[in-house]
Amino acid sequence: MIADLRGLHELTGGPEGARRVCWTEEWERGRRFLRERLEELPVQVEVDSAGNLWAVLAGRSSETVVVGSHTDSVPHGGWLDGALGVFAALEVLRVTVAAGEPERTVALVDWADEEGARFGRSLLGSSAFAGSLEPTEVRGLRDADGVALADALAEHGVDVDAMGGAGEGRRDRLAAYLELHIEQGPVLEAEGLPCAAVVGTFGVERWRALFRGHAAHAGSTPMETRSDAGVAAARTIASLPAVARRYGGVCTAGRADFSPGIATAVPGAADVLIDQRHLDRAGLADMLQTARRLAIESAEAGACTFEAEAIWRIDPVRFHPGLVGAALGACAAETRVARELPSGALHDASELARVVPTAMVFASSIDGISHSPVEDTPERDLEQAIRAFGRLARTVIADGVP
Amino acid sequence: MIADLRGLHELTGGPEGARRVCWTEEWERGRRFLRERLEELPVQVEVDSAGNLWAVLAGRSSETVVVGSHTDSVPHGGWLDGALGVFAALEVLRVTVAAGEPERTVALVDWADEEGARFGRSLLGSSAFAGSLEPTEVRGLRDADGVALADALAEHGVDVDAMGGAGEGRRDRLAAYLELHIEQGPVLEAEGLPCAAVVGTFGVERWRALFRGHAAHAGSTPMETRSDAGVAAARTIASLPAVARRYGGVCTAGRADFSPGIATAVPGAADVLIDQRHLDRAGLADMLQTARRLAIESAEAGACTFEAEAIWRIDPVRFHPGLVGAALGACAAETRVARELPSGALHDASELARVVPTAMVFASSIDGISHSPVEDTPERDLEQAIRAFGRLARTVIADGVP
Repeated sequence: MIADLRGLHELTGGPEGARRVCWTEEWERGRRFLRERLEELPVQVEVDSAGNLWAVLAGRSSETVVVGSHTDSVPHGGWLDGALGVFAALEVLRVTVAAGEPERTVALVDWADEEGARFGRSLLGSSAFAGSLEPTEVRGLRDADGVALADALAEHGVDVDAMGGAGEGRRDRLAAYLELHIEQGPVLEAEGLPCAAVVGTFGVERWRALFRGHAAHAGSTPMETRSDAGVAAARTIASLPAVARRYGGVCTAGRADFSPGIATAVPGAADVLIDQRHLDRAGLADMLQTARRLAIESAEAGACTFEAEAIWRIDPVRFHPGLVGAALGACAAETRVARELPSGALHDASELARVVPTAMVFASSIDGISHSPVEDTPERDLEQAIRAFGRLARTVIADGVP
Repeated sequence: MIADLRGLHELTGGPEGARRVCWTEEWERGRRFLRERLEELPVQVEVDSAGNLWAVLAGRSSETVVVGSHTDSVPHGGWLDGALGVFAALEVLRVTVAAGEPERTVALVDWADEEGARFGRSLLGSSAFAGSLEPTEVRGLRDADGVALADALAEHGVDVDAMGGAGEGRRDRLAAYLELHIEQGPVLEAEGLPCAAVVGTFGVERWRALFRGHAAHAGSTPMETRSDAGVAAARTIASLPAVARRYGGVCTAGRADFSPGIATAVPGAADVLIDQRHLDRAGLADMLQTARRLAIESAEAGACTFEAEAIWRIDPVRFHPGLVGAALGACAAETRVARELPSGALHDASELARVVPTAMVFASSIDGISHSPVEDTPERDLEQAIRAFGRLARTVIADGVP
């Protein structure tokens, strides 16, 4: 299975990184590579109305255990992000076929456009399947060349207005969704663990903090008469790590823009992009409220005004407790350490958890690096993570959701 | 004289602000307006090799008292910045002519390119005259359209290689340089004063603070493993006001650039533009050292590295104590308040002070605003400032430098 992963990377990646950006020819090439391998198995392959690829292995019951992830990548992406989970699912199919007719139906899924690399909307295929996508919200999106999302998807056989029906007729048969993914963070590596169970994905509050003061001459304006929006913004940014630690989440100021933005002027305006994440809805709300209060205090201390502008939010997602327990047991059986952790990044599993019992397994990431050609995982960790995931899948296929 | 100033603004400014950017046709138009008024006086008008315009009224002694400022402006500039001092100098010539042959020779000067608005180098003409300009440092400068400074100056009769000689033969005859300018800051307005004597101009340390950490996923990277360059930069910016107040200078972070600069990534790098000003050389050095130490501490606290990159520096300039005293007396005679203050902005007087006893008078600025079409001074303040400056000039022309 790791050889298959390397083969995919040889075909659609290389030293410059993976190039399977969704709705492109390279992405389709990766899918043909996957289909060739699926042809060797007694599975029914189809693509739903959202572009998600399914390979269904009928079992004694039509109740379906879904295993998968995504083959699409960011430009110059890593060889494991998404692809690991799809090829681990392929391995689950192979092992299940070899073991004879399974108790439950097993389906591999390759979600379309998890990354949103071309049109900026992540989790496109899985949200369409889960019924949470509003076609009107994405129809107007355009890529960097001005191509409309609707036109690009049509080239790949997807009608944006029909995407929302992707889950109809299939969603009701689902018993569980299981996904293996790399951590894309440094926690497992730091603890010397190859893999762990994921308890859920962080909720996100993404917003813009806008500070307004008065632009003034950097030489002739005494400190005590300034309304320095840059200082107000800086005080807020500097206070974010303490906010995150206090509530057990993460807070990031990814960008700050001072205006007029020249050496000789006190900034009259400062805009800061803030991203806050937490596993608990209440923790997320508290963290947001505290950061906003500190921003107001920083603004007032600097004789500035403050305004918050919401950009995007998503609630935290808790995976299915029984399945998380099963994942924990499967990982512990391989590694002798029972470790569960939350995911700071979103995954297709965040969408699936809305409609079906869901769990994930994480494999370690070297230096926590992802979305980069140097993304990697030690081969021994990969093998253990794949075995733990296989163990989890076999249990759920045989015994159902705990 | 205020009518002349309004006439100049009607010709080369308007609601969109002054447009006398140096080495342009609008600037030459402003100078023709000035020359027309000089033609009514028994003065010898000439332009030196740096493009500075001189109007010399011979006195009993060849020892020369120079009065002036600059007619060039920034784009969308104010009607008083520079022009006030040149037309106050014109008024000094008129009054002196009316009073009969003066004790000393009196010269009006209109320095070329004080603002550096087109090529980024301020105080061009006055530094050439003072002998502190290195032609090699400016020859390669280009404007936004790619035009070389040397070519633009040649169109206005100035040979960049010969500029450095502008002061030869004239500098030695100078007895004093006196300049009236608007404050461009809020101090006088806040104190209800129309004008005051200027003791000198702040020295400047302008530098770039470069913080380097590790870019990482804003969701999957725990707070305790981050090397967030943005937080290190923010801590430093937030500490600057206290540094300025501790030493009695001013500190400004005019710009901050986080990289990669997106909502979903912990900044791996942050560059901050810092400008520090102080009237004392030691105060300036202490302020610089303290800010650098705080930057190092902020970097270390955030597991980042720090590097400082010098951009530009100039020593503080103290004006001539006797002339500052005379300016103080002249202002007090008009306003009944003896107030002296430093200039946070640089002026042509900063260059002249290197080679000749120099003093300045400031007129108040409404809201401290300059380099803007709304730049203004209450007319009553203008009149008092002009009268105080005239009183100062008459004293020095009659009695020499105290």
